[in-house]
Amino acid sequence: MVKITRYKKEDLETYCLGATVSMEYLNIRPEKVSRVYLHSAFHESETKDKIEKICSARGIPVEVNDKAFSILSQKENCFVIAVVRKYKCELDKNASHVVLVNPSNAGNAGTIIRSATGFGVPNIAIIRPAVDFFDPKVIRASMGALSRVNFKYYNSFEEYEQTDGAGTRYFYPFMLDGSKLLHEVTIQEPFSLIMGNEATGLPSSFAEVGQPVRIEHGNGIDSLNLPIATSIGLYEATKGRFGRV
Amino acid sequence: MVKITRYKKEDLETYCLGATVSMEYLNIRPEKVSRVYLHSAFHESETKDKIEKICSARGIPVEVNDKAFSILSQKENCFVIAVVRKYKCELDKNASHVVLVNPSNAGNAGTIIRSATGFGVPNIAIIRPAVDFFDPKVIRASMGALSRVNFKYYNSFEEYEQTDGAGTRYFYPFMLDGSKLLHEVTIQEPFSLIMGNEATGLPSSFAEVGQPVRIEHGNGIDSLNLPIATSIGLYEATKGRFGRV
Repeated sequence: MVKITRYKKEDLETYCLGATVSMEYLNIRPEKVSRVYLHSAFHESETKDKIEKICSARGIPVEVNDKAFSILSQKENCFVIAVVRKYKCELDKNASHVVLVNPSNAGNAGTIIRSATGFGVPNIAIIRPAVDFFDPKVIRASMGALSRVNFKYYNSFEEYEQTDGAGTRYFYPFMLDGSKLLHEVTIQEPFSLIMGNEATGLPSSFAEVGQPVRIEHGNGIDSLNLPIATSIGLYEATKGRFGRV
Repeated sequence: MVKITRYKKEDLETYCLGATVSMEYLNIRPEKVSRVYLHSAFHESETKDKIEKICSARGIPVEVNDKAFSILSQKENCFVIAVVRKYKCELDKNASHVVLVNPSNAGNAGTIIRSATGFGVPNIAIIRPAVDFFDPKVIRASMGALSRVNFKYYNSFEEYEQTDGAGTRYFYPFMLDGSKLLHEVTIQEPFSLIMGNEATGLPSSFAEVGQPVRIEHGNGIDSLNLPIATSIGLYEATKGRFGRV
């Protein structure tokens, strides 16, 4: 009998709340799924069949356990929970990266993960202090796309710069007073799009890093929100790459 | 003595939860603010002075009332609530618009309002059924930018098209199978960027409306989230407009 407790950062396991999110982990990283809880009210037979098929093939225990839901999920529409063993990733040193300096909000982190996946930049460097990417709120906001990205924590930007950010690489810090407009810069690859904290942005020292850019907008708002700015950066940096479908 | 009740859609008043959000309404639409509640634990003297100055000049009652907070706000860091009388807006018929077809999520609506304000497109048409833009959750997620936009509801896209959307105007429905890539289209003004519902997107009939566009992304995700797609559309449609600061 496994004891079910609410998620804490120091836990060795985390939770995918919901069928879509759980399916992503079962499809992309099934070897990390240690068990699946189903709610007794879960009746989407097609999804249920898929889950049971993957779990059976992989020897992953599936258990109807309504108590797990009352402990782990506040959402009414959550009927599947995949329990995931935490794992370590390495960034692809030759690929483009998103660098998040002190991101603090779980929902924002999840939205950024989803966009980074969509725009084909699934390597995310995170500079501490920062939100815990294994927090179930992050995984849920990413709609499970966390399973598709490499992410790694660093104690400082310097540590990133000297390790996985070393070598030929083009840095673009996003700053409200960036010296060039994003759309006037030709973004070279591999790039590192560097985004600051939600409330405070990047420290002014980043003005000396690579090519600082700004997204032009009017003065009706102080700034765009972090996932929006990051996604516009990713859009601009990757457009034309995927070609016509 | 005013009776304070939790927000309902049919109420004639709504609430700005938080100092930043309340300040936006006090600055931009003070004539709509009927009273301001302060929490007894509110000690930011600079903001407090500003609020009291505007309210005094406008004859807006200010009241320390902790009960209002326990009824209206679940957030711990909310110390100011501005009560706002609901109002009707007209769209600027000659300006560019954002058209939201059946938006359902309050947080998303707020984020879109903030981006539309930032990109200088403060005219939003909303096709019913849709989230209530006066919901305090929308106002809060917009960080008060709702005060800066014109928004109006229509019972159908046809109603919009025949009224405020009539005349010379370029329609760009955003669709996963849009016939052109966003960045390959020259967006003409005044434009209407047309965005579908979070879960279902636009009905396929919009393939016949104006120039359907798609934002290219890889297949690791089903779609970008709605505020992200809308903001990328706004960025692409307005870039170069604000000039260099």
